[in-house]
Amino acid sequence: MNKIRVSLVGASGYTGLELVKIFLRHPHVEISNLAVRSDVGRPFSELFPALKGRCDLICSTIDVSRIINESDVIFFGLPHKTSMDIIPKFLDSDCKIIDLSADYRLNNEETYKRAYGINHSDKGHLSEFVYGLPEFNREKIRQTNTVANPGCFPTGIELALMPVLQSGLIKTDSILVDSKTGISGGGKTPQPAFHFPESNENVAAYKVASHQHEPEIEQELSKMAGKSVDIVFVPHLVPMTRGIYNTIYTELTGHLVSGDLQELYLNHYKNEPFVRVMENGNVPETKHVVYTNYCDIGMAVSGNRLILMSAIDNLIKGASGQAVQNKNVMIGLDETLGLN
Amino acid sequence: MNKIRVSLVGASGYTGLELVKIFLRHPHVEISNLAVRSDVGRPFSELFPALKGRCDLICSTIDVSRIINESDVIFFGLPHKTSMDIIPKFLDSDCKIIDLSADYRLNNEETYKRAYGINHSDKGHLSEFVYGLPEFNREKIRQTNTVANPGCFPTGIELALMPVLQSGLIKTDSILVDSKTGISGGGKTPQPAFHFPESNENVAAYKVASHQHEPEIEQELSKMAGKSVDIVFVPHLVPMTRGIYNTIYTELTGHLVSGDLQELYLNHYKNEPFVRVMENGNVPETKHVVYTNYCDIGMAVSGNRLILMSAIDNLIKGASGQAVQNKNVMIGLDETLGLN
Amino acid sequence: MNKIRVSLVGASGYTGLELVKIFLRHPHVEISNLAVRSDVGRPFSELFPALKGRCDLICSTIDVSRIINESDVIFFGLPHKTSMDIIPKFLDSDCKIIDLSADYRLNNEETYKRAYGINHSDKGHLSEFVYGLPEFNREKIRQTNTVANPGCFPTGIELALMPVLQSGLIKTDSILVDSKTGISGGGKTPQPAFHFPESNENVAAYKVASHQHEPEIEQELSKMAGKSVDIVFVPHLVPMTRGIYNTIYTELTGHLVSGDLQELYLNHYKNEPFVRVMENGNVPETKHVVYTNYCDIGMAVSGNRLILMSAIDNLIKGASGQAVQNKNVMIGLDETLGLN
Amino acid sequence: MNKIRVSLVGASGYTGLELVKIFLRHPHVEISNLAVRSDVGRPFSELFPALKGRCDLICSTIDVSRIINESDVIFFGLPHKTSMDIIPKFLDSDCKIIDLSADYRLNNEETYKRAYGINHSDKGHLSEFVYGLPEFNREKIRQTNTVANPGCFPTGIELALMPVLQSGLIKTDSILVDSKTGISGGGKTPQPAFHFPESNENVAAYKVASHQHEPEIEQELSKMAGKSVDIVFVPHLVPMTRGIYNTIYTELTGHLVSGDLQELYLNHYKNEPFVRVMENGNVPETKHVVYTNYCDIGMAVSGNRLILMSAIDNLIKGASGQAVQNKNVMIGLDETLGLN
Repeated sequence: MNKIRVSLVGASGYTGLELVKIFLRHPHVEISNLAVRSDVGRPFSELFPALKGRCDLICSTIDVSRIINESDVIFFGLPHKTSMDIIPKFLDSDCKIIDLSADYRLNNEETYKRAYGINHSDKGHLSEFVYGLPEFNREKIRQTNTVANPGCFPTGIELALMPVLQSGLIKTDSILVDSKTGISGGGKTPQPAFHFPESNENVAAYKVASHQHEPEIEQELSKMAGKSVDIVFVPHLVPMTRGIYNTIYTELTGHLVSGDLQELYLNHYKNEPFVRVMENGNVPETKHVVYTNYCDIGMAVSGNRLILMSAIDNLIKGASGQAVQNKNVMIGLDETLGLN
Repeated sequence: MNKIRVSLVGASGYTGLELVKIFLRHPHVEISNLAVRSDVGRPFSELFPALKGRCDLICSTIDVSRIINESDVIFFGLPHKTSMDIIPKFLDSDCKIIDLSADYRLNNEETYKRAYGINHSDKGHLSEFVYGLPEFNREKIRQTNTVANPGCFPTGIELALMPVLQSGLIKTDSILVDSKTGISGGGKTPQPAFHFPESNENVAAYKVASHQHEPEIEQELSKMAGKSVDIVFVPHLVPMTRGIYNTIYTELTGHLVSGDLQELYLNHYKNEPFVRVMENGNVPETKHVVYTNYCDIGMAVSGNRLILMSAIDNLIKGASGQAVQNKNVMIGLDETLGLN
Repeated sequence: MNKIRVSLVGASGYTGLELVKIFLRHPHVEISNLAVRSDVGRPFSELFPALKGRCDLICSTIDVSRIINESDVIFFGLPHKTSMDIIPKFLDSDCKIIDLSADYRLNNEETYKRAYGINHSDKGHLSEFVYGLPEFNREKIRQTNTVANPGCFPTGIELALMPVLQSGLIKTDSILVDSKTGISGGGKTPQPAFHFPESNENVAAYKVASHQHEPEIEQELSKMAGKSVDIVFVPHLVPMTRGIYNTIYTELTGHLVSGDLQELYLNHYKNEPFVRVMENGNVPETKHVVYTNYCDIGMAVSGNRLILMSAIDNLIKGASGQAVQNKNVMIGLDETLGLN
Repeated sequence: MNKIRVSLVGASGYTGLELVKIFLRHPHVEISNLAVRSDVGRPFSELFPALKGRCDLICSTIDVSRIINESDVIFFGLPHKTSMDIIPKFLDSDCKIIDLSADYRLNNEETYKRAYGINHSDKGHLSEFVYGLPEFNREKIRQTNTVANPGCFPTGIELALMPVLQSGLIKTDSILVDSKTGISGGGKTPQPAFHFPESNENVAAYKVASHQHEPEIEQELSKMAGKSVDIVFVPHLVPMTRGIYNTIYTELTGHLVSGDLQELYLNHYKNEPFVRVMENGNVPETKHVVYTNYCDIGMAVSGNRLILMSAIDNLIKGASGQAVQNKNVMIGLDETLGLN
């Protein structure tokens, strides 16, 4: 088959690096543009020496018409709040658009303002984007040209809760999410909290019950439950580079034991290529999923409490891997291409 | 003043190392015996080269009468299930006894059996030991000769919950505790889960809602609340050497805001030398307490939920530091000696 | 083309895990046997949960005739000193044999005894094995059925020194090698030195000028130089999971500047798919090569000293990746298959 | 005795934090001023929350006359190149001055310019400062009012080489130093190379044979040897917070075995409170010295090569601890006060 031409706008961050690494393994993809805001004219492998000899493409400016002409799919790895200023310029094309920022994930401009502190500058397109969680929205993704790729925390949390929310097995007003993330989740720009001597040998909560991903999670969980879901979300930084671990405390509406729930989850995800349900009381561990597109899910019941655990690689299933999975779905390819 | 003669029985683990390091800084303490089960005859500094030139004492056998004769205070750093076989031999003396194992923490032999899987071999003395959390039991500790030093997880969790439990401000049947511990909490013996390539760059829950510390925590929280307290406790391993971070999700019984609670906590702990209450929305971080005897506590309110966070060094406030704090209380010394 | 049937004997270590991960990505390989000494009957994914759903093959006994019948290539991941007792049983077959242990790397039984402390039990076959460094021995590897896969330290050191040794540009009696290795180099079995609280936040030399890889390195460097080479080799443990960094101090025989040497190296390795020469004064970093089969080489000149640096992933180019590279060469496939 | 009043100028970096922690343990010291360039008016414990409740002093401006009036000893923790602009203002006082920057370590302004790239702005005072390595210059330190505290790399390297250089046992033109440093050596300001996802799980050389500490090391080694010493110095970043490990490759001038050298070192350092010589073939490890003022030294002989290893805590013996040791010497106190 013809190669699919992909471009990246905002290629210089960690999601850009991971996208390119996946593209290089993908049999049906060729990279046409790596567009950046700074670093124009430098080889991509100079920004990321790990790619020396593997991707020495020169980083280009964000030349809208050229990128449109030379691409079948365009990935946007720009920061939140920047993405919505640039993406509209690309929306009149036939290109498929996948935005890895948060700008098109929330359906409601008020929620956006509350979460991100500014007015949305492209409200008109908000409703057109499909939330790119293939396990939940596969059909819609197949039929759209514009996908908002889920956040790293939301991905693992939503996948863990989907089966019990859709089955109505847990209370929707009593969901507590304790997440632990590796430091790469904070991006590539040096900051005091991510300075090695500060983040090494340290655990700390941050943005307690006030993280900007909380509205996104509640929005999608509410769709799954068919009614309003309210969560408490507390993320923590832990001293590792990659991986997110979510521990989710819920209350069962009826009497169920671990075995019932394991069965439910195994059944729910039996055809999903990238969700693995732990069996026999095993729990997920981030080391089993890093550098992969898997989400591993485990569970335990204690009285009327159901404790769910999920683990993903924040940069793969939590960002670039899921973006490629979405692309594969949008194009009609085998969903796992480039991801195994 | 005369030096207080201290001995260690079971000196070869991490708690032994930390105890000796504290003793060396303590102006009124001299070490008389470092008794071990293996490694007899070797200098302590050969077991722990960090102490070369600082503590080259020869490790001795567990010679009961000699140790009793040469000690004012005896610390026991033996493993759970071993401690209760050896400690009774020392109980007929005038020596003050501080047990760092779990063997004398539970008041009830049935609970012990459920938690540790075997019958308690010294039931008769169970009720004589005082639970050595000075912030809760200072007077009792002052008057006893036998202290059971609290577990590492229980210490930080109990200190975080004491003010609101004693004030009746939270529901006692809805307390969820998500703990993150450094790997030294697993002790000095190599095991697959603590092998560097397995524990580095990894987060994983373990013993989900089935950890042996859960009954100890519930026992002490129930005393604080004046009624039965039931918790869900999920510990996690995170890739660092030292430190425990507890994130505790509770439900308020009435309407309260963060400021009220901060006030309550500041007031409750205002005379405690080793508890620090975070102010202005700051959260604890393990890096601020490691290598100290501090427990840092922070809080946030979200709707009717109160989220408490506490951080300690698992080997200091969670073990050896607290043991020395208890010793200082028992002897009538300034409680902070050796610990600042 | 027909799939190449590969088997692993001694599959339960880290090299086994990495081999299987590479096989799963290799378009022309199918795994026929994962033979183990213990763990027989368990799914491979139970030993390595990261492979759940990707390789659930049941681990089998070391059944010589079955393995021979069902394999085109057999990889041996057994420990040193064990390999030489088992491999001879497979040598009468048509299977291609790749040994990842050290047992067939040394050409001389005396040297083996000095390095490993015991008599070699299969001296007769020592001379038949080709040392599997493709960049040095590609033709010989192509023509043999038995390959001794190089050690992790030797690989990066030999690749760094080959160009200057073959050109006679450095003195052969003044080569000092300072290596830093991640902890996975010590294998999967828990040991005190690899216990997380002991190896984290620590750097230490070990086996100073007495490591068992020193004779292997000297043997191969001597072949490259055409005369006897004597090195001083000091390995160090550093707190990371993967990667080896070699810093090599040599003395130039004549006057040369950095540019000359960079040119020599670029030219020497210009057709090598897995060696990258750093340019413009850049130095290698282990993070750029981990999870890849690359060896990155950099250099600096200071007076008459040439300092060479090389970085590899100890488990990939230093073991399993190089083994697959050797297999590709032996079979006549594109050398990079499965490795990009 | 009266408390010694100490002030810090440039208190906001890691050396400032460590100095204050040592002062708090020192029985004869009281802190009078913590002067900073930014952060004026904030409590010191806000900059370093680990010190909450232990040092809540308000950071003040650099008010020269007030600081002089209120201090017996003034420590300077300013950056290189800044220190020499500020220190001269303090030199007309009776205060004892200890500069932790590099500005007064080099005796020669030309060397300074070569190492730091700018002209020295206070050449006149260069010769007045004593190089504060107590094990080498104790008498001079006792008699001076101005000390230049050694760099972190130089400290461990010079202590390792002093005995053999003073005895003339090694060649002075063949000393190769391979150093590995924890990331805190790079200071408190976030930078790409110290960003956790970049420095974690990575080893890399930097400033190969061109580090600014090389001239300082050569200057002091030359004094020890009584003739010009030329070294090759290659520092490496390793993923840990604290600690420096030096591996030093030298050539013996005559025939000596390990035992002879161990004897020499034990004898040389027998009265030094902060130098420990490893015995019986043991090597130093950074974990044995971090959080202490010790320098551990080990050695091995291979043919005519002598390999020396030394380990220190870069922030303690490599900076703040040594500064306090110098202060103790200058004041005539027990040299170990505050440091054990």
